[in-house]
Amino acid sequence: MQAATYFFVFVNLSLAVFEDPAVYPLPFLATSLVEVLCLLVFFSRLLHFAKVTPRNTFWKDAKNICLMMAILVTLTDLIIHGALKICNITSVRYSRIMRPIFLVNFTESRQMRRAFRSIRNTLPEITYVFLLFMFSVLMFSLMALKLFGDRNLQTVEGSPYFTNYLEIVFDLYVLVTTANSPDVMMPAFDFSWWYSLFFITYVIINTYIFMSVFLAVVYNNYRKHLKNEIRKLAYMKRHKMVEAFNILKVKEGSEFVVKESQWKQVVKLVAPEISTSHRELLLRISDDEQKGYVDKKSFVRLADLLNIQVITMKIRSHPLEHWLPHVYNSAASRFLRSMVRHKRFVWTYDVIILINAIFIALDEENPLISYAEWAFLSLYITEILLKLYTYEPRTFFAKNQFWNWFDTLIIIAALVATILNATFKSTSKYNGQQVLDIVFILRVLRLIRIVDSIQRFRVIMNTLINIVPTMLTFGGLALVVYYMFAIIGMEVFQGKIQFFAAGSTDPHALECGNVALKDSTFARAKYCKNNFNDIASSFIVLMELTVVNQWHVLAGGFARVTHQAAKLYFIAFHIVVVIMIVNIFIAFILEAFFVEYSLEKSEVETAIEKKIQELGVGVQEEDLLDGKLIDNMETTENNVEGDGIKTSRGLVFKIASKRYRTVDALLQRMFEAEIPSEDEGLSFDEILNLSPADLYPKSPTFDSAA
Amino acid sequence: MQAATYFFVFVNLSLAVFEDPAVYPLPFLATSLVEVLCLLVFFSRLLHFAKVTPRNTFWKDAKNICLMMAILVTLTDLIIHGALKICNITSVRYSRIMRPIFLVNFTESRQMRRAFRSIRNTLPEITYVFLLFMFSVLMFSLMALKLFGDRNLQTVEGSPYFTNYLEIVFDLYVLVTTANSPDVMMPAFDFSWWYSLFFITYVIINTYIFMSVFLAVVYNNYRKHLKNEIRKLAYMKRHKMVEAFNILKVKEGSEFVVKESQWKQVVKLVAPEISTSHRELLLRISDDEQKGYVDKKSFVRLADLLNIQVITMKIRSHPLEHWLPHVYNSAASRFLRSMVRHKRFVWTYDVIILINAIFIALDEENPLISYAEWAFLSLYITEILLKLYTYEPRTFFAKNQFWNWFDTLIIIAALVATILNATFKSTSKYNGQQVLDIVFILRVLRLIRIVDSIQRFRVIMNTLINIVPTMLTFGGLALVVYYMFAIIGMEVFQGKIQFFAAGSTDPHALECGNVALKDSTFARAKYCKNNFNDIASSFIVLMELTVVNQWHVLAGGFARVTHQAAKLYFIAFHIVVVIMIVNIFIAFILEAFFVEYSLEKSEVETAIEKKIQELGVGVQEEDLLDGKLIDNMETTENNVEGDGIKTSRGLVFKIASKRYRTVDALLQRMFEAEIPSEDEGLSFDEILNLSPADLYPKSPTFDSAA
Repeated sequence: MQAATYFFVFVNLSLAVFEDPAVYPLPFLATSLVEVLCLLVFFSRLLHFAKVTPRNTFWKDAKNICLMMAILVTLTDLIIHGALKICNITSVRYSRIMRPIFLVNFTESRQMRRAFRSIRNTLPEITYVFLLFMFSVLMFSLMALKLFGDRNLQTVEGSPYFTNYLEIVFDLYVLVTTANSPDVMMPAFDFSWWYSLFFITYVIINTYIFMSVFLAVVYNNYRKHLKNEIRKLAYMKRHKMVEAFNILKVKEGSEFVVKESQWKQVVKLVAPEISTSHRELLLRISDDEQKGYVDKKSFVRLADLLNIQVITMKIRSHPLEHWLPHVYNSAASRFLRSMVRHKRFVWTYDVIILINAIFIALDEENPLISYAEWAFLSLYITEILLKLYTYEPRTFFAKNQFWNWFDTLIIIAALVATILNATFKSTSKYNGQQVLDIVFILRVLRLIRIVDSIQRFRVIMNTLINIVPTMLTFGGLALVVYYMFAIIGMEVFQGKIQFFAAGSTDPHALECGNVALKDSTFARAKYCKNNFNDIASSFIVLMELTVVNQWHVLAGGFARVTHQAAKLYFIAFHIVVVIMIVNIFIAFILEAFFVEYSLEKSEVETAIEKKIQELGVGVQEEDLLDGKLIDNMETTENNVEGDGIKTSRGLVFKIASKRYRTVDALLQRMFEAEIPSEDEGLSFDEILNLSPADLYPKSPTFDSAA
Repeated sequence: MQAATYFFVFVNLSLAVFEDPAVYPLPFLATSLVEVLCLLVFFSRLLHFAKVTPRNTFWKDAKNICLMMAILVTLTDLIIHGALKICNITSVRYSRIMRPIFLVNFTESRQMRRAFRSIRNTLPEITYVFLLFMFSVLMFSLMALKLFGDRNLQTVEGSPYFTNYLEIVFDLYVLVTTANSPDVMMPAFDFSWWYSLFFITYVIINTYIFMSVFLAVVYNNYRKHLKNEIRKLAYMKRHKMVEAFNILKVKEGSEFVVKESQWKQVVKLVAPEISTSHRELLLRISDDEQKGYVDKKSFVRLADLLNIQVITMKIRSHPLEHWLPHVYNSAASRFLRSMVRHKRFVWTYDVIILINAIFIALDEENPLISYAEWAFLSLYITEILLKLYTYEPRTFFAKNQFWNWFDTLIIIAALVATILNATFKSTSKYNGQQVLDIVFILRVLRLIRIVDSIQRFRVIMNTLINIVPTMLTFGGLALVVYYMFAIIGMEVFQGKIQFFAAGSTDPHALECGNVALKDSTFARAKYCKNNFNDIASSFIVLMELTVVNQWHVLAGGFARVTHQAAKLYFIAFHIVVVIMIVNIFIAFILEAFFVEYSLEKSEVETAIEKKIQELGVGVQEEDLLDGKLIDNMETTENNVEGDGIKTSRGLVFKIASKRYRTVDALLQRMFEAEIPSEDEGLSFDEILNLSPADLYPKSPTFDSAA
């Protein structure tokens, strides 16, 4: 159901690829039919919601109203547009801007909605800083007008320098983004070097200080509001757990408790996927003294316990040991396996990778080198086979063995692509450039593995891999904003600038098919392909605008072919994306890195680990592939005897590597130290109405809370 | 003594202005004599140090050794250079790079040394991230070579696109700084829009993620090490205070205490500048129950108490009230004063400022407008006079009344400059452009005042003003790095690129006096004035390189006139300044902002404030100029009667506004929550040898500590 909704949301979004202006044009009838289908799906999903939620809750929820409005408006727009099309009148399909609403507002994208809410809450404070910043820009512009306006200076292009106030404001706004530095300064600097001080002061105040302040404000507020949301969630979770406890409780002595059997049933019900031994482990933690019941405090903690991924691993002997015990345990086989386990094996392959890198850089045409490629491929395949021979395959390809998966997939893909490429080459004159490109990329990606063999790099890489899920939320956020700007951009600029491939004989090829661009910086820099003529190009242009550099050239070009007011579009994009979204992205990476840097484990995680250690069924990640596992197991066996958990030989637990943490878990981990664990007194309504001020009565800020 | 050292350090540094290549040339003999004089001063200062510090400590201190070496090397270099000059052999004055050593290593610049130490400690971790980042750049370059190398594509300038590996690495390194985006992508993008994905991936990974990681690592480490240093200081302070207590203590009942009289003597000795009533206040805090003695805990806190600026204010009646009581207290005068105090008075002037802004933007040549300037000036002066009439002058110009000072100085300066300008204009044909420029700037600066009348803006402005002292430390840091790079730059690039003023008839004017630059982007952008021909130009070029945009054009230009290896100079500058220094700057602004955001006061501050409140001698900052002061005073008087502190009528205390906090205080405030207040067990040596690991045994990171 959820997957289907996502699918239709993306189908709906991707309609922009096929609608006019299209990358791959389809008739209007086709796209509009698909759109109607999507709307139907969304509507039925909404109906389903309405059925399962109480009426009051449903109509109170702003997102449901929002969705209904969006469906209605889109449908109306579609009908009007269709009708007008039949009469050959072109109209603007304005409802296309509303499509991301579906992405944001279906329940599944909770993270994204939360991010948007946080942005909305950050707005007031940002606005004040922004006004102050604009005031500073306006002041400096006034100064620049007075200082340079009457000097008859000229820019590099020969136009008058700093004579029109509005143009100065734009130029100095661009300077804040540093995109026109140092060009904007050169005429004044050429006149006298004293004037450079004006620009240096400007850059220090407006670029360095104000932009840092923006980051600080965004960081501070975003974090504050996010924390508030997470806190609400934590309160709600605890509230529900207490409710559950109250239903299940029985009196035992002086206190209310939940019986072991009931507890087991509950866990089986809410988490049917976990193994029996895992459940026993959790019980041992919840009922520490083995009294046969779980008290309130431990029961409430259950939700957190279930959130922690505990991997139950079976220590399996290698399948070959089963099938061919004599061969596998022979002296030669043992020697081979110890060789593969040895550090020098890794080093040897590191050297091979380095040599491979040199070969890749060399000329492809040389036949010797293209044969070498086969040699390298077979070396890599040998490595994987040797490792599979040495380590138990299911352990080798365990969920958390990122690098093993990465290696194997890359090698297999490279093998397939190389074979394909060779086949194409030999059978026909077809030059499989696309396949070759993929081969090249895969070949280089193979080299990345060398990073994993250096401990310090591995730590950094792991941190980076850990924050990938978080970054995906921002990917969604960026997609929404980009999509809206792209749709507007296509409506406004579509067809105004055209790209002509090299060697085109069109008389206007050099001015991008628009005489207004004659002698413009835009045309001279050959930016013609940066246009809004289809959604793909629009996204690429918007990406370039996000990177900021030369955005004034792009803005100038589009301003020329429309009217100067088009600059507003680009300034708006800069404010929304660069000042808001990018800063939030940076803030989140900073925060995630700080969290990852702290090696502290959370309270519950430590409790589980302690218990695992106590029971002697723990295993260190490093041991997993180092062959120490068996020794470890043997020691374990001695300790476990007579224990409540039936740890049959070859069963160990391990807290999952932090790698596959969800965004929610990461967020909760970030703020969990600050979420009080005692109060349960708040009612459900009170929790929902919590404002940040309520939660931080004393000190509503990052620093004090941190 | 300290001022003299600073003076000579700056004289020594500023020699670069007069030495060849000079802004204002002076003969070698003159500059070298001044340098020798400076060295003599430094040496005598060092001798002085050696006398007052124990021999062991002196020779153990790396900075003394460093200073001695620098003096020795400079002297030798000077002699050799002089001797060679007599024989007409030019040699490199390499010792000039060492001049910032004197700035860093004299005791007074503690903050800067601390910053450098923190940078040094951050290096290892940064290095690993940097290596990983370079690895990523190299991988992508390899991919780019394979993907685009054989396509026969051309750049905008017509040179082959992505064919040489080293050039690709440079181009992609530049892309990380975004300086050549989107130009570097355009040829591939023109060929097929699929290839833009390569560049987008590259930018996301290397610019957005890696640069944020750099910021995170710099922030995290810099903060960690800084905290460690501050912690050491706090330990040392406490240690010394305990020592002092042990000398002064007498037995009183079961505990050791310091007698009130002794305590007063000590305070008088260490802080002779504080007033008697301030001292009484501190005593009341230290001896809370008025037992006549101070116990150990309170005594140790004395240093912190003395660090807090408590302003003792005398509520003085207006001098005019003394001299002309009848006139000053007449009905008309009372009305005038109440008018000035009214909010509408402020609003009126806000409107006047806005009208003024419009007049400034209008054309100067119109005589009516230049008369209007006189009108505005007189309006502003009237305002200040009225305020001085209403408020007591010494209160109006109190140390912490930033905006009053700012206003008055700007107005007076504008008055003087305008009169000067008018005089010049009327008496002769002399066109005092410099004076006029200053008049223009002052006129615009006047408008800033409007910010102060909006509460939200004032808060942000105050925060910004608060972090100015901190930023000055970074100014010093930047100066040191800039100076070194400027000296190297001048030695390497001096005279290679020349600037010819507009209208020059030199045949090479268009190629900056160097044929190698013919048809280069550098010459076409008219960057000829961006050269290393004197220290001022060098600093400006380095500033442009810090801003990053177009740095590849600058680097390319200088690489052409020397050899390609010159690019290394620019890359080194980028790594040192943009990746390290700028990130530290941003980190510090972030941190300072977070601290300022938290409205929490420190423990000691609260203690003082509580006592002030208790004694009823407090005053709110807002009351100060609002005329509520007198009412407040009257209430106060009633409460204070019979109190230990002789609060004569018109004496109030106030914790100084946070504005004039020192950097050290800010730092300490940042970390004070984390500095434990109990342990005193550490010996002096133990404190000095503390490593970050010792201080944070459990969790050596920002997040956990925060």
